[in-house]
Amino acid sequence: MTRTALSDLEIAHKLADAARAAILPFFRNLTVEAENKLTDGFDPVTAADRAAEQAMRDILAQDCPTDGILGEEFPNVAGTSGRTWVLDPIDGTRGFISGTPTWGVLIALSDADGPFLGIIDQPYIGERFVGTADQARMTGPQGASPLRTKPTTTLDQAILFTTFPEVGTSEDRAAFERVAAHVKLTRYGMDCYAYALLAAGQVDLVIEAGLNAYDIQAPIAVIQAAGGIVTNWEGGPVHDGGRALAAATPELHAAALKRLQQG
Amino acid sequence: MTRTALSDLEIAHKLADAARAAILPFFRNLTVEAENKLTDGFDPVTAADRAAEQAMRDILAQDCPTDGILGEEFPNVAGTSGRTWVLDPIDGTRGFISGTPTWGVLIALSDADGPFLGIIDQPYIGERFVGTADQARMTGPQGASPLRTKPTTTLDQAILFTTFPEVGTSEDRAAFERVAAHVKLTRYGMDCYAYALLAAGQVDLVIEAGLNAYDIQAPIAVIQAAGGIVTNWEGGPVHDGGRALAAATPELHAAALKRLQQG
Repeated sequence: MTRTALSDLEIAHKLADAARAAILPFFRNLTVEAENKLTDGFDPVTAADRAAEQAMRDILAQDCPTDGILGEEFPNVAGTSGRTWVLDPIDGTRGFISGTPTWGVLIALSDADGPFLGIIDQPYIGERFVGTADQARMTGPQGASPLRTKPTTTLDQAILFTTFPEVGTSEDRAAFERVAAHVKLTRYGMDCYAYALLAAGQVDLVIEAGLNAYDIQAPIAVIQAAGGIVTNWEGGPVHDGGRALAAATPELHAAALKRLQQG
Repeated sequence: MTRTALSDLEIAHKLADAARAAILPFFRNLTVEAENKLTDGFDPVTAADRAAEQAMRDILAQDCPTDGILGEEFPNVAGTSGRTWVLDPIDGTRGFISGTPTWGVLIALSDADGPFLGIIDQPYIGERFVGTADQARMTGPQGASPLRTKPTTTLDQAILFTTFPEVGTSEDRAAFERVAAHVKLTRYGMDCYAYALLAAGQVDLVIEAGLNAYDIQAPIAVIQAAGGIVTNWEGGPVHDGGRALAAATPELHAAALKRLQQG
């Protein structure tokens, strides 16, 4: 009896489905929170984070035993295939504990050159943003649609997002503010959802600092598939984490990079 | 042939349904935006705003001809009943144009004492937060549930939201920062959705400045129905707009008010 192998994308969807199922019972669950607040060290977001990552790792152990795993919650698994699944079960834990619908599950598949498949999933809304070498699309409450970044080329037409006004170090913040001073609109507080909005052609720039590899690999794959560009603040690869600049077009990326580096 | 009169709450739901239908075709609609960007003065959010408010006013003219109307987009209607429908078809237009799912339709019904019925509706997610003298409840992707503010009484346990880090004037900002310095977590960018999260027991404080009556009346009704308290920064009624402090409990409200006034 042979089993038809699942494609990478099918496995990624399976991981995202499993993470949704593991996390949603904890989201905005006041009963769970109240019942457990006297238990030592219980924290709903940590419980949800760990349950989701374990569910995804169980699937990978079964379906892709030779691939490596890099996740937020458990030790790395060194694979033999040269491919690594990069998992952040809840990106935006502060948004999660506040009940906002802008945290997400991040799933990427990478090789030595970086991520080539990514999913940003928002379980509560039921939205999924997917990028591969062949496709960039989302599904959500309004159905399915292709992802395509905006054609914006100049800062004065750009909408810029970041998560916290503090951004990173004081130098990071100053660099961010040099860009923010020239854009049409700056907004805060969206966590990984800002990258999804960039891929969906809704916003033009996302600038963040202090990222881990698992925070940025899925956004890189989704945004690149949608026609955008993501680098570090020196213009190089950012898939190992650090400071990220995501832009809708190469021209806009160059304009923002110049301001970031002008300090 | 007689028609059974609709209750106030049934009319409010009818308004919210009409606003949803009017607005959603404009939200994240890149085709509409691209097709119209050369047309003089076309702006999708303004078009959506006006279409939704007109749809709600048409219903009110039919169903409640003696009630007054105070809305963002069109002139006031002076009623004879002593009751006024207070409408903000899209609260959070900057969030709307960025594609975030945190703008909302605000509907309140008020008399001389202020709003006694309120709805905060998020059409894209399909969430509706309702407060009346008799009930406080929400419906959304996970079904229906009661709204109840958190029991938080001290600032050091509180999650605080506001929309922009700038808040209002520099004095307003300084006052906000006196509160923010003492809370567990401060988050930005949620527009009216922050008030919904407060009513839903997810966050503890919302502080904003520069509000119009139509920005705050629905949040007041929803939060009060859920057990919370909303005043201006002097502790008085805020239903005519201005600077708002919304809190989960009277104790937390008093603690935040003290910091706001300490300048």
